[in-house]
Amino acid sequence: MADLLARSSAVLTGKGGDTALRIAESAMCRDGRVMDLASFRRWFAELGLRTYTRTERVPLEEVEGWSSDPVTGNIGHRSGGFFTIEGLDVHIQDGPVPDWSQPIINQPEVGILGILVKEFDGVLHCLMQAKVEPGNCDGPQLSPTVQATRSNYTRVHRGKPIPYLEYFRDTARRRVITDVRQSEQGSAFHHKRNRNMVVEVTEDVELVDGFCWLTIGQLHRLLAVDDMVNMDARTVLSCLPVAHPGLASVLRPGADGFRSALVRSCDPDTPGIWSMGDVLSWITDVRSRTDVLIRRVPLNALPGWRRVDGRISHESGRFFDVIGVRVEASGREVSRWSQPMVEPHGMGVVAFLVKRIDGVLHVLVHARVEAGYVDVVELAPTVQCTPENYEVLPRSARPRFIGEVERAEPGQIRYDAVLSEEGGRFYHARNRYLIIETDLDTHVEHPDYRWLTVHQLGDLLRHSHYVNIQARSLIACLHSLSAGPGPA
Amino acid sequence: MADLLARSSAVLTGKGGDTALRIAESAMCRDGRVMDLASFRRWFAELGLRTYTRTERVPLEEVEGWSSDPVTGNIGHRSGGFFTIEGLDVHIQDGPVPDWSQPIINQPEVGILGILVKEFDGVLHCLMQAKVEPGNCDGPQLSPTVQATRSNYTRVHRGKPIPYLEYFRDTARRRVITDVRQSEQGSAFHHKRNRNMVVEVTEDVELVDGFCWLTIGQLHRLLAVDDMVNMDARTVLSCLPVAHPGLASVLRPGADGFRSALVRSCDPDTPGIWSMGDVLSWITDVRSRTDVLIRRVPLNALPGWRRVDGRISHESGRFFDVIGVRVEASGREVSRWSQPMVEPHGMGVVAFLVKRIDGVLHVLVHARVEAGYVDVVELAPTVQCTPENYEVLPRSARPRFIGEVERAEPGQIRYDAVLSEEGGRFYHARNRYLIIETDLDTHVEHPDYRWLTVHQLGDLLRHSHYVNIQARSLIACLHSLSAGPGPA
Repeated sequence: MADLLARSSAVLTGKGGDTALRIAESAMCRDGRVMDLASFRRWFAELGLRTYTRTERVPLEEVEGWSSDPVTGNIGHRSGGFFTIEGLDVHIQDGPVPDWSQPIINQPEVGILGILVKEFDGVLHCLMQAKVEPGNCDGPQLSPTVQATRSNYTRVHRGKPIPYLEYFRDTARRRVITDVRQSEQGSAFHHKRNRNMVVEVTEDVELVDGFCWLTIGQLHRLLAVDDMVNMDARTVLSCLPVAHPGLASVLRPGADGFRSALVRSCDPDTPGIWSMGDVLSWITDVRSRTDVLIRRVPLNALPGWRRVDGRISHESGRFFDVIGVRVEASGREVSRWSQPMVEPHGMGVVAFLVKRIDGVLHVLVHARVEAGYVDVVELAPTVQCTPENYEVLPRSARPRFIGEVERAEPGQIRYDAVLSEEGGRFYHARNRYLIIETDLDTHVEHPDYRWLTVHQLGDLLRHSHYVNIQARSLIACLHSLSAGPGPA
Repeated sequence: MADLLARSSAVLTGKGGDTALRIAESAMCRDGRVMDLASFRRWFAELGLRTYTRTERVPLEEVEGWSSDPVTGNIGHRSGGFFTIEGLDVHIQDGPVPDWSQPIINQPEVGILGILVKEFDGVLHCLMQAKVEPGNCDGPQLSPTVQATRSNYTRVHRGKPIPYLEYFRDTARRRVITDVRQSEQGSAFHHKRNRNMVVEVTEDVELVDGFCWLTIGQLHRLLAVDDMVNMDARTVLSCLPVAHPGLASVLRPGADGFRSALVRSCDPDTPGIWSMGDVLSWITDVRSRTDVLIRRVPLNALPGWRRVDGRISHESGRFFDVIGVRVEASGREVSRWSQPMVEPHGMGVVAFLVKRIDGVLHVLVHARVEAGYVDVVELAPTVQCTPENYEVLPRSARPRFIGEVERAEPGQIRYDAVLSEEGGRFYHARNRYLIIETDLDTHVEHPDYRWLTVHQLGDLLRHSHYVNIQARSLIACLHSLSAGPGPA
């Protein structure tokens, strides 16, 4: 076995195993070994004073470097890089709204979202960046170590080099814990994916200004704060391996019934209502019986949408606008640029209904069609909607289970925070994320919904095309409940 | 746990487990319980006399029911169903041939390839159909129980109902063993997928003329026969769960070193050179570093291709032609129709190099870009090419490892047969499939190739977008070696 062992130690696993226990230990370390949360808050506030992004709305016609194709109206950057805004014509047979048209961001490039991790005093810490982004409402948010589009790191805009990028570019000699391409909002992006990575280092790493080392436990506490942990950080955190049969000995849920059920749900040996084979067959079935016809069409020929006053809006005033912004930033790769952004109307609701079934926490997921997915459907939160939009849609389009979310008693609400979506493409896009314990009858199921365990979601997260960005955010939030308040 | 158990028994797993052992037992049953191979051969020969497909080439202009769009030249059926033939413009940065154009079959429908299985005398048997298809060279081939495009089963062409289809349509109350959407030839199809299914029944099943029950062992023996087991049957067989730590007790490889290594390679507890995390990260990396730009373009504007004498050909005379055929068939849903087909030039070579590493059989797979894949690359055989085509391509495009295949000694060749590709779209498309044991140094690896164990390939086969159709055929052939000659 010498040959096998030599290889296995040179290139490490990312398979879970002991890594999951080390992540649990980091989750139990609620106040870090490098910087406690009080110091973090001072550092973060001070940084917020020094770094800023001033974002000013401008008409699309005045977005410098970007122009509209005279024939199609599609909006693109003169370099051909970054992204384009085009039109999409969507037909979903038997859907509540079977036909619609919309603008869509076409970003075929696959960027990198990477978190560098390293042990301090035997505890894993994540290198996080306090990053200001043009679309965010208020000050910096915690982002991954590296958050770079391909245009960024191939230097289309000739900005400064990206700190720590090299750890994620040449992975052959690195300990790669997570490495998977995951989708982003299928309602706004055509086939957008980012490479979600977690890489461990043992050597010394120079700390660049604007970066800090936090434990998973600290990040879990910060996930409870509105607009603090950004979307890119949440998706990478959700892809960390957590499944392990020995988790309870580290996370010590004790008499806390909810936490016990959550920890049990992370145990790969604990059966769920459905086997993994059932889950995969169900996804295959939904994908196969859903007739979706997606056509890219010119942006200037979208029924129901119009370009007025330098923005593109739906005639109902709902959904979202495509706007232009001019940005002046410090602490970013370049300090002045303009770009189009998507500005949603209204705050969304993104919620998991969860339930203890025979002592094992199950999550009710929705096999959801979105126009921009690569493979028809992905698993989404139980509820994912912007309630205001439904005022202009047929009653049958009203999301299932929204009533359970609206009627939830305070004691049922396990998680509740307002979190921002990606601030590089979305302008002031915020959703209320909720995890609600329900007593819904598990036997009454809609064919597009299933109760899954947390380790089943973890299995799916090792692959592309299964779990959507909103569900990944909620999975990160759900894990933030696994260690409990613990020692501060 | 009552709730969990009630559900788990109502909807069964497909997870492997005992199913893998029952499949191994069926593989050991080399001559069936329903019909021995001698009787099968008589039945099959007799059926070949009664059923036939007469396929006559006709100019594309005379393919009834099909026409070319006056603007684009794209070829489609008047119903809008089945498929279209369009053009594709391909750019693969850093590829040996970075730019080319080609006709492509656009078949967005996902059909069903399903094998019904049932125990006779405690041994699993597969319900196979002896099916004649217009593109096949010579007589019927063994196909899955159901092999139906969506146009077939939604009856676009108003043919006869498809036998046994109902077992694969409503899976909620069935024992589903395999259910996964898998790609087909990415060099000929744009995003084509079929749903590969294996469903077990316990009730009596009426035997329709043209169908027969065969064990996996019988199918394994028939896989050694040229042009006998069709492509659709091979891909479904490759997706059967085979991984199990207890396999050796059923397959009894004894002193046969090759079979022992193969059986060990199916054991999920046996480590391979690379962990599953490494393999997934490698696939993520190849996908992310491969810049592919695919554009659908009009068929009549493809550089290098021309429509002459009622067919579309490349000016070099290589690759493939798009031709028209008129078909007269008995024993099929409709008895007379016309359609376009793809006729490749030359016979391809499809080969796995395999190697025992520390007693565990490893397969050298290639992360291969094909223009029609949904997610950039899929794992392909070590060698997959049509040697004649390389006479007109740059020398750097010559496939790696073709030398090892050409120089293989008879004792290294573990599998060697000529098998047909799908006879519904391809006209006389045959490839020589080979499995060759090699003594290549495992440490000398190209970044697009990796040594995987058979159970790792099995893990990947539970999901879409990982293993291409040629590799799946070879995996079915590789499994056909696991039980050895055994009792006849």
